[in-house]
Amino acid sequence: MNNSHPNPSYSISLKLRLPNRPGALATVINALGEKGGNLGCIDLLKQTPAISEREIVVNASSEHHALELVEVAKQLPEVELLSWQDRTFALHEGGKIAVTPKVVIARQADLAMVYTPGVGRVSKAIADDPRAVYRYTIKGNTIGIVTDGSAVLGLGNLGPEAALPVMEGKAMLFKQFAGLDAFPICLATQDTEEIIQAVKWLAPVFGGINLEDISAPRCFEIEQRLQTELDIPVFHDDQHGTAIVVLAALTNALKLVQKTLDRVQIVINGAGAAGVAVGRLLRAAGAQHIILCDREGIISTKRQNLTPGKAEFAIERSGSLADALVGADVFLGLSIGNVLTVEMVRRMNDKRIVFAMANPIPEILPELVTNDVAVMATGRSDYPNQINNVLAFPGVLRGALDGRIRRITTAMHLAAAQAIASLVSDGELRSDYIIPSVFDDRVAKTVAQAIQRLG
Amino acid sequence: MNNSHPNPSYSISLKLRLPNRPGALATVINALGEKGGNLGCIDLLKQTPAISEREIVVNASSEHHALELVEVAKQLPEVELLSWQDRTFALHEGGKIAVTPKVVIARQADLAMVYTPGVGRVSKAIADDPRAVYRYTIKGNTIGIVTDGSAVLGLGNLGPEAALPVMEGKAMLFKQFAGLDAFPICLATQDTEEIIQAVKWLAPVFGGINLEDISAPRCFEIEQRLQTELDIPVFHDDQHGTAIVVLAALTNALKLVQKTLDRVQIVINGAGAAGVAVGRLLRAAGAQHIILCDREGIISTKRQNLTPGKAEFAIERSGSLADALVGADVFLGLSIGNVLTVEMVRRMNDKRIVFAMANPIPEILPELVTNDVAVMATGRSDYPNQINNVLAFPGVLRGALDGRIRRITTAMHLAAAQAIASLVSDGELRSDYIIPSVFDDRVAKTVAQAIQRLG
Repeated sequence: MNNSHPNPSYSISLKLRLPNRPGALATVINALGEKGGNLGCIDLLKQTPAISEREIVVNASSEHHALELVEVAKQLPEVELLSWQDRTFALHEGGKIAVTPKVVIARQADLAMVYTPGVGRVSKAIADDPRAVYRYTIKGNTIGIVTDGSAVLGLGNLGPEAALPVMEGKAMLFKQFAGLDAFPICLATQDTEEIIQAVKWLAPVFGGINLEDISAPRCFEIEQRLQTELDIPVFHDDQHGTAIVVLAALTNALKLVQKTLDRVQIVINGAGAAGVAVGRLLRAAGAQHIILCDREGIISTKRQNLTPGKAEFAIERSGSLADALVGADVFLGLSIGNVLTVEMVRRMNDKRIVFAMANPIPEILPELVTNDVAVMATGRSDYPNQINNVLAFPGVLRGALDGRIRRITTAMHLAAAQAIASLVSDGELRSDYIIPSVFDDRVAKTVAQAIQRLG
Repeated sequence: MNNSHPNPSYSISLKLRLPNRPGALATVINALGEKGGNLGCIDLLKQTPAISEREIVVNASSEHHALELVEVAKQLPEVELLSWQDRTFALHEGGKIAVTPKVVIARQADLAMVYTPGVGRVSKAIADDPRAVYRYTIKGNTIGIVTDGSAVLGLGNLGPEAALPVMEGKAMLFKQFAGLDAFPICLATQDTEEIIQAVKWLAPVFGGINLEDISAPRCFEIEQRLQTELDIPVFHDDQHGTAIVVLAALTNALKLVQKTLDRVQIVINGAGAAGVAVGRLLRAAGAQHIILCDREGIISTKRQNLTPGKAEFAIERSGSLADALVGADVFLGLSIGNVLTVEMVRRMNDKRIVFAMANPIPEILPELVTNDVAVMATGRSDYPNQINNVLAFPGVLRGALDGRIRRITTAMHLAAAQAIASLVSDGELRSDYIIPSVFDDRVAKTVAQAIQRLG
């Protein structure tokens, strides 16, 4: 994590007892602020004529910085640090989701309807008419979030247990933004065939499958095979969610600089699941000039042993990322932090568009090129224009389930991107507002409708 | 379903508009009652000087009977049937459980803690220390309810989709009675090795596995293998839940008739998962004289091709169920409806105990032998002494998870049975009260403590 910005992911809360007199609180705040802490809510827990007890939220910029701030609080004269906690870890205690009954079983009669013997009637009805499973069970509203933990966020192969907090977070987002019930399935295998087999065995409970944090190139085959072999929709969010939101944002960014997708020179850095999927969707949307780069530079036909995904984008030309960017209109970063320099950006074409979407550290920090780019977007919430999959996956799967769609097509991805882009009107469009907020509650509904219209 | 008792599993609700004058409601109620309907709640939805609109709940005894009652309502003079519904199916619309966030994501700062980038810190902490998964994820409170749909209730091999309503009901019970989050896993395979493999791949998310409605003899191997190969507790409720509750009830029934487990002659009818498990637990508790019967009669060493479970109980003697029961003290029915006759019961020993637990139709209807037995129990809620697994599984798994117990042992099953039995005090013990109610909120807690004490 970049140390330059205190942010909520490193936020702590401090419970302090301080003298109840003017200036005492200001002293605390000053001390924390001087040490680089970013103050959030300040709550009053208790007050007597002599003392106040307060809970103070402070954003730090790293775990080390958080500990320094705690130390500051400990050493303030006349102030007692009663307790403190890391708010991110505190929020995760016991997990973030629950499985809850929709009705309370208050008496024997209820038990006889929701469980034996009444439930047997429903089971028989489903055995007689398999379609009834969508009506009388959770299936029609339930998503399996499947991972093998091989590519957890940008952190690498942390395994299925370490992936679970991410999948729980995703389940929260499915519920909050689209009303879908989603449950994490973290598989103790990273073998392609075994993952496919596991998901096929699991499928009866689910109305759709969201694949997540499975590393490339296995994720491509797993998704394709499952789309063919299952009768429910399968969506790999790292590919298509990202691609949809990038296309939405790029559509609006190009409108702003008055360029068209078919004519711009686009450089995509990062040839993992997201990079390849973005390239594919941009092509489907009409992009003609895409250069895909990985850590070795331009993906060239001269290179050996290219995966099929990379081979699709191989061009004759070879060279470094810096070479690729000379004269380019658009940079799309789906790689790692700090790989883009100010010089590279300045060698791009006029009215350049830079999406530096690596998380948590972007390919280049926006403040370094404020005056060098026409439009800048990142994956982060603390800069404008956040490219966040949350704009896509809840609505895509809501639409797929509501429309009982068996397969989510490229045409649907394109429609979802247009739906998201359309929520920023021409009048609202600005270089720091090319994409709606994740908290814009029109988004999921609009995306779902776009998906369903093609179902 | 036996037609003799109207019951909640066949309950309907009728919305009726009737004249607002004395006697009008009574006419409706009389007509429904005369046709055999059992009246439940009667609600007033709307009233004007001229009319009342009411919702009337009526228990029927079959789907056919329910339709007859609807017909009665339609044909009442001056009464209009506005609508009606089958309450069991209505309760199942859209499924019975939800996956819900424990905290609301109200702003960007929340998102940065529960999802990226903050969640990455928690993932890394778990990757560094695998035990942390119990603290920072749902694992420590979450049960996978695994079935293949091969033995759904008493209804047979209905498949995984048709099993889902039962598993959802079970998940409701886990939450309501033990605060556990349980999620249904209905597998699209009925192969022993594949089921074992699937559960092993799925295990990372779960703190424990409850196997359910998997037919014998496969269920025995699946449970044993998973107990050995997984590091979380695995509990096959159809076996051990049943065995625990039967032993609890039998302990108290024997106390009432002043006999002891080691001396009584016990006949178990039904040699499926439940029958074999009950036999095994009774032996572990000290029973010396058990005759196990299946549909061919006494399981005798003279028979060929016995499954290992049956072979454990094979005796030299052979004969019919009727032969086995001559002089027996205890009949335990885990088979099918109406296989026990009044004559068979009368040929048992004095102070005979009959547990007719087949569902929904018991091996013999209690009213046929009211004066012929000392103690009668069934699996049904509309008779006294309901033998219901709900008394066991929530507490067993609560205790296993709280105690971080890797394997639930026979000693724990025995302790759970004693814990349940102990909740009926000597002063309370009567022939119609040998086992606590499923709504007795001491049960799960007491069972959990008994399990944990041995952990």
